[in-house]
Amino acid sequence: MTDPDHVDLLARYEDVRSQTERLAAPFSPEDQTAQSMPDVSPMKWHRGHTTWFFETFVLAPQDAAYRPIDPAYAVLFNSYYVGVGPRHERSARGVITRPGSSEVAAYRHHVDAAVRRLLGGSIDDDVRQRIVLGIQHEQQHQELMMMDIKHVLAQNPLVNRSDRADQPVTERGPTGWRSFDAGLCVVGCDRGASFSFDNERPEHRAFVEPFAIADRLVTNGEYLAFIDDGGYRRPELWLSDGWALAQRESWCSPLYWDLVGDGWEEFTLEGRGSLDPSLPVAHVSYYEADAFARWSGARLPTEQEWEVAARALGADDVHRHMALHPGPSDADLFGALWQWTQSAYSPYPGFAPEPGAIGEYNGKFMINNQVLRGSACVTPPGHSRLTYRNFFSPGSRWMFSGIRLAKAIS
Amino acid sequence: MTDPDHVDLLARYEDVRSQTERLAAPFSPEDQTAQSMPDVSPMKWHRGHTTWFFETFVLAPQDAAYRPIDPAYAVLFNSYYVGVGPRHERSARGVITRPGSSEVAAYRHHVDAAVRRLLGGSIDDDVRQRIVLGIQHEQQHQELMMMDIKHVLAQNPLVNRSDRADQPVTERGPTGWRSFDAGLCVVGCDRGASFSFDNERPEHRAFVEPFAIADRLVTNGEYLAFIDDGGYRRPELWLSDGWALAQRESWCSPLYWDLVGDGWEEFTLEGRGSLDPSLPVAHVSYYEADAFARWSGARLPTEQEWEVAARALGADDVHRHMALHPGPSDADLFGALWQWTQSAYSPYPGFAPEPGAIGEYNGKFMINNQVLRGSACVTPPGHSRLTYRNFFSPGSRWMFSGIRLAKAIS
Amino acid sequence: MTDPDHVDLLARYEDVRSQTERLAAPFSPEDQTAQSMPDVSPMKWHRGHTTWFFETFVLAPQDAAYRPIDPAYAVLFNSYYVGVGPRHERSARGVITRPGSSEVAAYRHHVDAAVRRLLGGSIDDDVRQRIVLGIQHEQQHQELMMMDIKHVLAQNPLVNRSDRADQPVTERGPTGWRSFDAGLCVVGCDRGASFSFDNERPEHRAFVEPFAIADRLVTNGEYLAFIDDGGYRRPELWLSDGWALAQRESWCSPLYWDLVGDGWEEFTLEGRGSLDPSLPVAHVSYYEADAFARWSGARLPTEQEWEVAARALGADDVHRHMALHPGPSDADLFGALWQWTQSAYSPYPGFAPEPGAIGEYNGKFMINNQVLRGSACVTPPGHSRLTYRNFFSPGSRWMFSGIRLAKAIS
Amino acid sequence: MTDPDHVDLLARYEDVRSQTERLAAPFSPEDQTAQSMPDVSPMKWHRGHTTWFFETFVLAPQDAAYRPIDPAYAVLFNSYYVGVGPRHERSARGVITRPGSSEVAAYRHHVDAAVRRLLGGSIDDDVRQRIVLGIQHEQQHQELMMMDIKHVLAQNPLVNRSDRADQPVTERGPTGWRSFDAGLCVVGCDRGASFSFDNERPEHRAFVEPFAIADRLVTNGEYLAFIDDGGYRRPELWLSDGWALAQRESWCSPLYWDLVGDGWEEFTLEGRGSLDPSLPVAHVSYYEADAFARWSGARLPTEQEWEVAARALGADDVHRHMALHPGPSDADLFGALWQWTQSAYSPYPGFAPEPGAIGEYNGKFMINNQVLRGSACVTPPGHSRLTYRNFFSPGSRWMFSGIRLAKAIS
Repeated sequence: MTDPDHVDLLARYEDVRSQTERLAAPFSPEDQTAQSMPDVSPMKWHRGHTTWFFETFVLAPQDAAYRPIDPAYAVLFNSYYVGVGPRHERSARGVITRPGSSEVAAYRHHVDAAVRRLLGGSIDDDVRQRIVLGIQHEQQHQELMMMDIKHVLAQNPLVNRSDRADQPVTERGPTGWRSFDAGLCVVGCDRGASFSFDNERPEHRAFVEPFAIADRLVTNGEYLAFIDDGGYRRPELWLSDGWALAQRESWCSPLYWDLVGDGWEEFTLEGRGSLDPSLPVAHVSYYEADAFARWSGARLPTEQEWEVAARALGADDVHRHMALHPGPSDADLFGALWQWTQSAYSPYPGFAPEPGAIGEYNGKFMINNQVLRGSACVTPPGHSRLTYRNFFSPGSRWMFSGIRLAKAIS
Repeated sequence: MTDPDHVDLLARYEDVRSQTERLAAPFSPEDQTAQSMPDVSPMKWHRGHTTWFFETFVLAPQDAAYRPIDPAYAVLFNSYYVGVGPRHERSARGVITRPGSSEVAAYRHHVDAAVRRLLGGSIDDDVRQRIVLGIQHEQQHQELMMMDIKHVLAQNPLVNRSDRADQPVTERGPTGWRSFDAGLCVVGCDRGASFSFDNERPEHRAFVEPFAIADRLVTNGEYLAFIDDGGYRRPELWLSDGWALAQRESWCSPLYWDLVGDGWEEFTLEGRGSLDPSLPVAHVSYYEADAFARWSGARLPTEQEWEVAARALGADDVHRHMALHPGPSDADLFGALWQWTQSAYSPYPGFAPEPGAIGEYNGKFMINNQVLRGSACVTPPGHSRLTYRNFFSPGSRWMFSGIRLAKAIS
Repeated sequence: MTDPDHVDLLARYEDVRSQTERLAAPFSPEDQTAQSMPDVSPMKWHRGHTTWFFETFVLAPQDAAYRPIDPAYAVLFNSYYVGVGPRHERSARGVITRPGSSEVAAYRHHVDAAVRRLLGGSIDDDVRQRIVLGIQHEQQHQELMMMDIKHVLAQNPLVNRSDRADQPVTERGPTGWRSFDAGLCVVGCDRGASFSFDNERPEHRAFVEPFAIADRLVTNGEYLAFIDDGGYRRPELWLSDGWALAQRESWCSPLYWDLVGDGWEEFTLEGRGSLDPSLPVAHVSYYEADAFARWSGARLPTEQEWEVAARALGADDVHRHMALHPGPSDADLFGALWQWTQSAYSPYPGFAPEPGAIGEYNGKFMINNQVLRGSACVTPPGHSRLTYRNFFSPGSRWMFSGIRLAKAIS
Repeated sequence: MTDPDHVDLLARYEDVRSQTERLAAPFSPEDQTAQSMPDVSPMKWHRGHTTWFFETFVLAPQDAAYRPIDPAYAVLFNSYYVGVGPRHERSARGVITRPGSSEVAAYRHHVDAAVRRLLGGSIDDDVRQRIVLGIQHEQQHQELMMMDIKHVLAQNPLVNRSDRADQPVTERGPTGWRSFDAGLCVVGCDRGASFSFDNERPEHRAFVEPFAIADRLVTNGEYLAFIDDGGYRRPELWLSDGWALAQRESWCSPLYWDLVGDGWEEFTLEGRGSLDPSLPVAHVSYYEADAFARWSGARLPTEQEWEVAARALGADDVHRHMALHPGPSDADLFGALWQWTQSAYSPYPGFAPEPGAIGEYNGKFMINNQVLRGSACVTPPGHSRLTYRNFFSPGSRWMFSGIRLAKAIS
């Protein structure tokens, strides 16, 4: 008799696996092949890599009868798991034209069939947890697929051109501030019934000084005022490394903005059109978020402050569907844009990575990155949490990142 | 009534245009999208660029009724013609996923239809010459397509792996030498009935000291002896820039060779298999050709010497079909591998580039390149001449290049 | 009548200024000119820059009669103060041969004379604080001078060669651990009678989980065991960025170690000789410190933990003279080697940089750096504090950095 | 009894050796230490390297009793002679502060004494030739010293500033043209009584089509007209590689020109002052010379044409002293500026490098360089010849290079 838990797990597995293919369906084999910068991976690579993850961490150790389609896939689709074996060079993923898009689909079917067989039998808790991890992992890559294809298409003058009709602009009131007293707070979570990544663990205490946090994200209109006030020409507003990068790459706006005549346009996955000043500003680096905050007389929150506020607000992931761009929403802790925090991505006190190669998932990146909290419009529903720690290098801009301000109060 | 010359020209046009599509047909949309290094262009880009060439230099100035499919194509498919307008960055051709492979086919049909219409009417000689130039240009790109896709596929461990059966090895005798006396010779050609590029013109005189030239190309077996004698470890054999490049890129063999166990394998467009010592050594840079020649106690010929010898031998392009790799042929002035010469690619005395943007075709590259003479197995039949000057930078190896030795005699 | 405070301040000024010249005296004009990497500045540049600091932040705003020696010095000797004006490119300091070493001495005399004049009159508290800041700043550069000249000389095979006699090796016992309970602690300091940099302020609370910290630094002998156990060949021990850097630069030991035959030697400012296993390991990057700690089953302390421990130990800066290399001391919180912490260099809650260009001193570097605590043998006596926050990028190794371990306890 | 030939050779040796020191004398130890780009060497390195040349190629093989001052010098002062042994990295010469300037002087004395001893005895012809080669080599480095120190000082705003008084401008008439018929000519020379480098040999025949060559160098005034006509903004005038380099490095004038207000100034070793339109344009790359020639409706001469013209004009090196900048002279085949030719630096037919490591002197650079003919104001008197082949990469500008035009005639 089939374990009802298995039924549920299999249903979630099938659901996420098919969602990946639904997301990829609109994109041609050519679209799915290109890599526009080393940080970006081709879409068909994401489809293969997430499959490799189940093959490597679930099937290989469990299913002696499992036969890979091709031993070369183990190299091509390994991202960064040194403990598992050699990896194709990350920056050269775009040159791998084979397996093609439909061969990747066949690879996915092959692995799915094996996972179904496995779930038809008895599995131990460790396997179960790895399948859950694989599901969460694939959801992360669903978001990466959308970030990455946006970057690919934005390079193409055939695609990135004015073709989107203007929408009515929503009026936005001024930012409100929510205040919190000083005190010990609880941060992170322990391993438990509901899923968490190792980097969110363990639950621990932190002391937070009095602070206030904005009740909504910074808008394009507010960010335009920063630009108009010389934001990209005033080094005193910037961190030193950020200023150097902005100069080197000639930044004068967020990524995906274009000055057309004397009006700004924004490229989104829905096309390019006039910049809507009421929408939250998106695709800013940590450096820009930090400079904007300094210009505003405010600062970015720490991740502890963000978590304190989110817990207090009773907020949780309430968005129900992915969207290609954030709308003018007030409930924007989740589902609009990831929010940069002032916190470097460091291990929590007592952090212990998972044993084995799977321990490379998070821990080895705990340097030179900043934490982002919340989630974004392209984050799959069900894949966000109060304790979720996303992270990117401070100069990155191609993810769906935005700005929530904070400030000290007395 | 239709001009019979037009009929002939149209037939040649159709022939070359359809040949391009036949060459591309075996390759998937994914294969046709990737760019494995800045020198390489995606196959579908070649198909678009050759089409753009007719659109820009034939249709645009002649056919007021002609309508481009998309104005962005003019930028995407311009290679290096600054005089024509802006160009998409060369090194970023691989990120252009749209137009896709089938949209490029539609673009080709669109332009072909317009060229047919044009040739249905009366055209002046200048237009006729430009169509001929476009045909020759497309033949050049047919060869580039084969060079480039070979480089793309070679990066892929799924493709570049041992799978080709060994062929029987042909015995090769020792190299023979053909001697020539000192004297004034004729080099190059004038504009005339048969086609030539501007860089082959004008016909002029040169003085050549006595020399001898080898009667066949250097073989893999001979090149292996160079390797075994420390060829890649002895700086005294190398030009200074060549040694620096070889060290920087860790060269220890020609491109596309792999040491598997203690045997060498060679990757070709037919797969990878044991290195055949009787075949001519291919995919060597000028630096390697020059070092090999020095090690042999010989040198490379000048392009004048090569031309003197080829004229004397009554040789001309006699190969009748493209091949994916050179065979063990004795008649190898043409149709096996391009042959590096000691001559820098410089203007002939009296050289005058074509007027206008088309003048950028050749002249502006007359620095930092070396001349190669002859033709290769992937050169389209009918696209080689005694006076043909091919050129590449001395460190390039991805074209089908080989070695013919020469030496001074007294 | 002269203010007695001024007398004291002037004495400190004269003391530090003349100490800089004493440190530089053994080095030739040639030694003082070279820049061995962008992070390194020539010694005569340090002597000029510290002088420029007083000229720019003390004399220029205060002394209308002050005349600079040469207006070009304001550009040449500005390090990174964008708010003050243009700066000579940092990486090109080594090409500035003039002013020469003796002209820099004249520049120092010129500014010293003006500062003496200023201190002969009445000055307000802000000026006084800037002179104190200038003194502290010059002490920082005294340490930089020693770090930088060590790096310059190490590149020179005439200097960096075995010539130092072995010293008797001191026996070291095992590391002891000092434990601390969880609790709220006090970190940092407020502006007060004694000097502090803005980055140490304000005093604030932090919660610290139970931890233990080592009672001495990691030794060369212990680090050798890490190397011998494959420390530089096992990616699972390393942060991802660290592993990439170590591979790119072929690290296989700390900076300044050389394997001679089968024995390690260490280059110090006293020459090169056999590695003394009892001395603390020096010149390691954060990545190496972190990998060593992971290999040891421990971790690096946070800066809060370090400060808690140092306060508890009643430790303070007790070393009385600079040394060219750390000795085998037990009291090594200060005066031996800076100690890497797990803490990213971030602003303290409530941090406010100084107003004006002087605010660029610290705040704009609060990204991509890690905090080091304590002080080193080359730190000038009197220039260290419990709350002192030194910082370097995690890949830097040319400063006098070492390793103190910590671990969680329950 | 002393061989009178030895007396003469020793006198020439002493003369050239002391001339090097006279040239270096005005420059401080700091000036002599810096390296402003990889192509530039510090002045004290030149002084050491020329000494090393005698030590390595004359003393070491001849004088068993000779003892080097320090074995490390053999590495530090070897430029590019791989056959002799390891070399300090070229781009890192500026970090070698020791030996200092006066220690280099001691090194020179040490070697000079040994050479004197050697010349006091009997030497064979090979040794004699090597001493002559060493003398010629040192003369080449005298010129390099002046080129290099000019580049070093030009980086320094203390030195490179307007301080040179204007000179009266000499009126220049239009360029005259000297015509030559087609014909076989003689190029190069054989080894003989008078010195030649191996790259000038052997004497051989070449056929030259009819041409005319300008009777003077292009002036600053003429070059300004090119600039004013958009010379640096019109890609159609440029070779492709040249245009790319000019864009990458933002060229808009020759090296050492500065636009101050709306007037051009030129930096020379005598200081910076208004550009004199009557002087020959200096410090142009091959790319600029070629673009200027194209804009003029002319071209650069080949080296064969240059030699034909110089032989016909009966010209030879007539300048009698080095100067820091060319004056307004009519006799400018020699002694003003090196003249770019259209000829790539290739081996002459029958070229054979010297045997052994000394054969690395010239031959291994016969790729990616263009030939310059004549000599410059900073070339030591007596160090130029009709057959002299100087060479630099086409993008180099820091040598004293100018432009002489040529054109085809019928």
